[in-house]
Amino acid sequence: MSFKEEQGKKVEVIETILKKYLPEQEGYQKVIMEAMEYSVMAGGKRLRPMLMLETFHLFGGNSDIIEPFMAAIEMIHTYSLVHDDLPAMDNDDYRRGRKTTHVVYGEGMGILAGDALLNYAFETAAKAFSMYQTKALEIGKAIQVLAQKAGIYGMIGGQVVDVESAGNAVSKEVLDFIYELKTSALIESSMMIGAILAGASEEAIKDIETIAKNVGIAFQIQDDILDVTSTAEVLGKPILSDEKNEKTTYVTLVGLDKAKEYVEKISLEAIELLHRFETNDLFLEELLKSLIHREK
Amino acid sequence: MSFKEEQGKKVEVIETILKKYLPEQEGYQKVIMEAMEYSVMAGGKRLRPMLMLETFHLFGGNSDIIEPFMAAIEMIHTYSLVHDDLPAMDNDDYRRGRKTTHVVYGEGMGILAGDALLNYAFETAAKAFSMYQTKALEIGKAIQVLAQKAGIYGMIGGQVVDVESAGNAVSKEVLDFIYELKTSALIESSMMIGAILAGASEEAIKDIETIAKNVGIAFQIQDDILDVTSTAEVLGKPILSDEKNEKTTYVTLVGLDKAKEYVEKISLEAIELLHRFETNDLFLEELLKSLIHREK
Repeated sequence: MSFKEEQGKKVEVIETILKKYLPEQEGYQKVIMEAMEYSVMAGGKRLRPMLMLETFHLFGGNSDIIEPFMAAIEMIHTYSLVHDDLPAMDNDDYRRGRKTTHVVYGEGMGILAGDALLNYAFETAAKAFSMYQTKALEIGKAIQVLAQKAGIYGMIGGQVVDVESAGNAVSKEVLDFIYELKTSALIESSMMIGAILAGASEEAIKDIETIAKNVGIAFQIQDDILDVTSTAEVLGKPILSDEKNEKTTYVTLVGLDKAKEYVEKISLEAIELLHRFETNDLFLEELLKSLIHREK
Repeated sequence: MSFKEEQGKKVEVIETILKKYLPEQEGYQKVIMEAMEYSVMAGGKRLRPMLMLETFHLFGGNSDIIEPFMAAIEMIHTYSLVHDDLPAMDNDDYRRGRKTTHVVYGEGMGILAGDALLNYAFETAAKAFSMYQTKALEIGKAIQVLAQKAGIYGMIGGQVVDVESAGNAVSKEVLDFIYELKTSALIESSMMIGAILAGASEEAIKDIETIAKNVGIAFQIQDDILDVTSTAEVLGKPILSDEKNEKTTYVTLVGLDKAKEYVEKISLEAIELLHRFETNDLFLEELLKSLIHREK
């Protein structure tokens, strides 16, 4: 089976899990369950739950304790998109070719659907306590990481600085901060929770955090690179958009060659770190490489 | 010391705890910490953390394990106000005489501040795992309740139905649903978490849930009653506003006398249930009574 085929099969498995953990559509408040499902089941690569599950397997995890957390991380990722798309934020009417949640359900319900997904992420993750009472400490640690990486010291923090910097020149230090918090944080969370729930050592969890951080930053810089080197046909969206929007990127800050070198460097570091962990399953390594060396 | 004096002293203690658990105002994302503090420290009766702490004491709890949860429930209450005030929701520019969060920090930051508070509520509650590793199961149970009562089967669910019903006639069944979820749910959460973390029995936790539910509903119906029986001077806000807004209330549905009788009935039930638990401290009972029999 090719990597692409394997990835497609894994996406199907993950989407079955997501559906299982989404709330039943019933009760007077049914519309909010509909809006939640509409936004979560809008497609996508399911990257975060996939990284979580693969990392869980890497450390020998093989129970369904991971499932509520896989659903939770995708709910958090989805809520961030729903709120990002709101008129007061990016004001986007379409995402992946479908109308955005607030366009379908109204702006007030768009806000509530995002709130509901964020809250339900923790409600779902906390179901693990009932499923595995003897693992309460590991589950607690996983919930701590889930919250930290999604919050003001993680994704929301990155989002805040990104919003604040719009239209202003940004230093490399600030750009690093935004990339690490806005993109890496949820990837770190995904992989760390996989490791934590599989019972990995503190040291291994630290290594996994570093790997995820590098992968997230490399992914984001690759985005900057493709914006100036790709074509609209390959990318599926307009190129040179950063220049048009006068946006500071790694390419504008250090130049194209240095940006490429840096992606190469931190990718290599990530893969080398991953090799510390013995495994016969090469899917995770291929997945990480596909994120860094993507052409679209 | 009078009840009012005692209540004032307790508010001070609670506000010290809230400040302790709010994030330091530092880093590139500092503005979000400022917006969080602006909204949380806007005053108020601190009813939910107070009920949590008093219930914790009722069952013999006496450690600081309750503190992160007291901060968490107030953060959740506050985020719901911040998002309620947004232009796409109630569009309120003022709350308790101060400009609302989105008016001061902008609409985008208002959305993010609400998100940040909701996320940080769970991040804060989860700190209890590091503080009391041997209590991981109780903390897990408390986090489950925190999430359930704030989410689509609790506060958000009530808010959704309230928003959806605006301008429509509402049946008594739907009104009960809204009151229970929108108002009672967070009061139930507060008191249940106090009981859970103090090690109360399953049966006692159930009783506490019933007490809190009744208090929340009585509180809400008293609101309907005061709108037709009080004066603008006593109430500090316009009276007859429900009639003006063509809002269905308990008074419009069952009439003033029946509404008063019902408040009396469920209040009595709540206080009788409370008497099952022996205590020398009458503050909790006085607090519950003050919520039901308030004149403003």
